[in-house]
Amino acid sequence: VIVDKTLGLLNTGNNFTGKRILITAGGTREPVDPVRYIGNRSSGKMGYALAQAAKSRGAEVILISGPVSLSPPAGVEFVKVETTQEMREAVLANFNQVDIVIKAAAVADYRPLEPQEQKIKKTGEIVTLQLAKNPDILKELGTLKKHQLLIGFAAETEELIANAAEKIRLKKLDMIIANDVTLPGAGFDADTNIVKLLYPSGRVEELPQMSKTELSAVILDKIYNLMINLT
Amino acid sequence: VIVDKTLGLLNTGNNFTGKRILITAGGTREPVDPVRYIGNRSSGKMGYALAQAAKSRGAEVILISGPVSLSPPAGVEFVKVETTQEMREAVLANFNQVDIVIKAAAVADYRPLEPQEQKIKKTGEIVTLQLAKNPDILKELGTLKKHQLLIGFAAETEELIANAAEKIRLKKLDMIIANDVTLPGAGFDADTNIVKLLYPSGRVEELPQMSKTELSAVILDKIYNLMINLT
Repeated sequence: VIVDKTLGLLNTGNNFTGKRILITAGGTREPVDPVRYIGNRSSGKMGYALAQAAKSRGAEVILISGPVSLSPPAGVEFVKVETTQEMREAVLANFNQVDIVIKAAAVADYRPLEPQEQKIKKTGEIVTLQLAKNPDILKELGTLKKHQLLIGFAAETEELIANAAEKIRLKKLDMIIANDVTLPGAGFDADTNIVKLLYPSGRVEELPQMSKTELSAVILDKIYNLMINLT
Repeated sequence: VIVDKTLGLLNTGNNFTGKRILITAGGTREPVDPVRYIGNRSSGKMGYALAQAAKSRGAEVILISGPVSLSPPAGVEFVKVETTQEMREAVLANFNQVDIVIKAAAVADYRPLEPQEQKIKKTGEIVTLQLAKNPDILKELGTLKKHQLLIGFAAETEELIANAAEKIRLKKLDMIIANDVTLPGAGFDADTNIVKLLYPSGRVEELPQMSKTELSAVILDKIYNLMINLT
């Protein structure tokens, strides 16, 4: 812990100067019709805090965000998207030019199979909505990655470690930040988070509850360590 | 038009003093599981502007709102809800004590039939979601109303007048504010709106594009006219 703390102190400067970081944030919305949509509960706070922290450490930041009620930090390149497919396109268009990807967005993994152009009138008591699976952006990046570090999030409600470990393997991630969104003080609209960090080696680091701003600093320290092969 | 304008000027004072107005705003969210939901595109701007305007004219205002990124106006009684069923309960609990109801919320009219307590893992390429019809709050108020004035909104994408006229009849409204959400400058996230006002008599008033704040003032003038039987 003491070593870790020391590294943290050493790394609070401009240690990401010259690095390009792509960060995704917020949820996406998949239209059912012009009025209704399927969404994901993500306030965007974690991703926006990471973008702010990376910018303040000298990185060039591209923030790709679904609809949230936050203003993007000054000086970041900002791309607003609505659906998961739009997010995929924006991420892929930038992937070759970046060194680090942090996927903090909670994208909708299914979309209505046949979105309607006109507002659907209320009909029966029970209706059926067919959903098609969305592309798994992070998994796709895992197959494409060369020099890039890939960092993901796993928002789970049960079997946190098992589910997160499966994701790190399947998506070829360099680190995953796993949180149990059912805990008070963790999850979507909270200003704090309680997470565990997992690595491909199987190592798990458990972090105490902290603000999303503080957590952003820790995550960037850990990524810095990955960059210089210190983990 | 001149008469109307004069009435408007006369009515900018404290003409709602002693009146209790219930205003609903925003969209509702219907959980699919702890992470995913079905939502409606409503920024809440129209309802919050109405609450502000009614408060500044001396009314006692109860604002019942789904999740939006706005702060409630000072001095209004504020009730935050998530689902359409929660909104129904909050509206019914207050209905007997109010003189006027303005339903500016765009509630989700269907909810997942069987919301899951754990996050649903991704499975097949196509999945089916069964939805159950939500209660029609405004229609229920129509059957319950005694002295209350009932004002509704109709957000439509086609056949605006026909759909709005059907709603005013079916829900026993005293006025409906109908807008075509596909028009630029109207609809959900816009700061302006372009609406038509419909009355039970079949009369239609067409209003020019104006800010949601200006529209709130016009709507309150029209409601005042209904209160004193001037229409």
